Amino acid sequence: MNIHERLGLPQVETDLRQLETLLTESVVFGDPYLDNVTTHLINAGGKRLRPLLAVASATGGARAATRDDLLGGVALELMHLASLYHDDVMDEAEVRRNVDSVNARYGNLIAIVAGDYLMARSAAIAADLGTEIAGLLARTLAWLTRGQVAEVRTSFDRDRQIDDYYLAIEGKTASLMAASCRVGAITAQRPATEVEALDEFGRCFGMVYQLRDDILDMVATDGQLGKPAGQDLAEGVYTLPAIHAMNDSVVGPQLREMLGKPLNDEEREQARQLVVSTDGIAATYAAARTFVAQGHEAMAIVADEPLRVGFSRLIEALLEGLPEA
Amino acid sequence: MNIHERLGLPQVETDLRQLETLLTESVVFGDPYLDNVTTHLINAGGKRLRPLLAVASATGGARAATRDDLLGGVALELMHLASLYHDDVMDEAEVRRNVDSVNARYGNLIAIVAGDYLMARSAAIAADLGTEIAGLLARTLAWLTRGQVAEVRTSFDRDRQIDDYYLAIEGKTASLMAASCRVGAITAQRPATEVEALDEFGRCFGMVYQLRDDILDMVATDGQLGKPAGQDLAEGVYTLPAIHAMNDSVVGPQLREMLGKPLNDEEREQARQLVVSTDGIAATYAAARTFVAQGHEAMAIVADEPLRVGFSRLIEALLEGLPEA
Repeated sequence: MNIHERLGLPQVETDLRQLETLLTESVVFGDPYLDNVTTHLINAGGKRLRPLLAVASATGGARAATRDDLLGGVALELMHLASLYHDDVMDEAEVRRNVDSVNARYGNLIAIVAGDYLMARSAAIAADLGTEIAGLLARTLAWLTRGQVAEVRTSFDRDRQIDDYYLAIEGKTASLMAASCRVGAITAQRPATEVEALDEFGRCFGMVYQLRDDILDMVATDGQLGKPAGQDLAEGVYTLPAIHAMNDSVVGPQLREMLGKPLNDEEREQARQLVVSTDGIAATYAAARTFVAQGHEAMAIVADEPLRVGFSRLIEALLEGLPEA
Repeated sequence: MNIHERLGLPQVETDLRQLETLLTESVVFGDPYLDNVTTHLINAGGKRLRPLLAVASATGGARAATRDDLLGGVALELMHLASLYHDDVMDEAEVRRNVDSVNARYGNLIAIVAGDYLMARSAAIAADLGTEIAGLLARTLAWLTRGQVAEVRTSFDRDRQIDDYYLAIEGKTASLMAASCRVGAITAQRPATEVEALDEFGRCFGMVYQLRDDILDMVATDGQLGKPAGQDLAEGVYTLPAIHAMNDSVVGPQLREMLGKPLNDEEREQARQLVVSTDGIAATYAAARTFVAQGHEAMAIVADEPLRVGFSRLIEALLEGLPEA
């Protein structure tokens, strides 16, 4: 999916090209080694989804982004990148965005401390934008870490509940997207009702985004994913499709028997097929649809029509190509 | 050394007892598991040196600390604790403050993310204290991480230069102590000249503190240290005494031959004795003395006599019991 095409706000695409320069400048310090480490994932590219949400929420595409609008997006992208640096250490990931992960290239020690540095830069930019944004980003980081802890704690837990799952994805994915929209609404000095509406849209967008990811992990081809399907099952992250499948009266017992421990390739594929044979995917799709509806509802009060239409198209686009049952 | 006795400002000791409650409250969320992780090192105690510097810089012991003075100290202690959580993962430490390290008790994944959470809480408190303190803490975290990177990069490097060493310790130790004094001076709304003077005192205090630590690692008994002497040598952290010793015309070549790789217990002790046989300890002591003098000089412009006297005694006390040659 081409997100800019779906958003349909060409000025936002122009703004985001400008943001690339600011993003690099914000972490470069003048020490070639450290600069290589901190720009490693910036240079690897990425969708810049969080800056896109921030800038679109600020301008609605109706005007060029101000420097503050762009810096809001930079602070959010840096927090996201910092969490990737730390996640990849935790997951012992070797590849990220088609390049070596930071830990694979520079070692765990440097990856941890470079992630801390990116957080520091994110916080410094947020502080320059005022106490409201500084406080918001700090609270978002707290939610993000709580979400990650919730996921780590329930790994390999066959009794993971749907509520545990929602708590984890709201923290680890939706909180940062909600904050992205909110930051843009704040830098643009939108009225309080629109700030709340955009925050809620961002949260819904993040929930759908993660539900989509968790469906794709079960149904996409390895080529589409860039990793084997069913990876979450193998690594003990039991997402909504798997939770539903474990409760299925027919295949649930067999699936539970297999899970609870790391899986080899053959076991992973077998477990994945068991999940796909249940209504777990359909139930997850239905859950995503309810968040899409909530997202539309939140946007309904936003007066700015191109933004309302653009964001509504964007959240709908997340469900495209997904199996509904 | 009893730091409160040396400081001689009894009201500060009373303030710090109050701070303990705020410190715990600042990280407790209501989830028993997460709360255990985040309070683990708080409960293990500690000198609360950074809050002490902040509160003393704010009040001079002449009045009770305000809530903002205390919260400044809390934000600094949380950043320090966050860095310990991450340091212990990086060093694979098993013990911290006489209890299990967080990584040993809960695993690396939780220790990394819990460190991030403590940073988030530190940043949130800083944001509540205003953009000046929020920005200061963010910049301090950036310096802290740069100091850590500098240390990691020069580990096992027998050509480590004195400047590399100073850059690393200024970042990893002195920057946070400088920020501690500065935050207290800001929450107390001291005049700009005193803010700068206290910041400079904190930096000097931090430099002396780290130089002292690096001398003790070479000369203290295992019982005094709670770990074997010469640990830095074994782990490839070549501190000022070792850098001097490697440049010694007599034992330098032999020492260089031994270093550059991890050492076993016997090699560590042999290398340590080589360092102690040179003037490396005396040179390090002399360096510490110059920072003590700079610290006194910085304090000279502070009108508040009990604070001036108290801080001057405190920085002097760091050198007590150290071998001068």
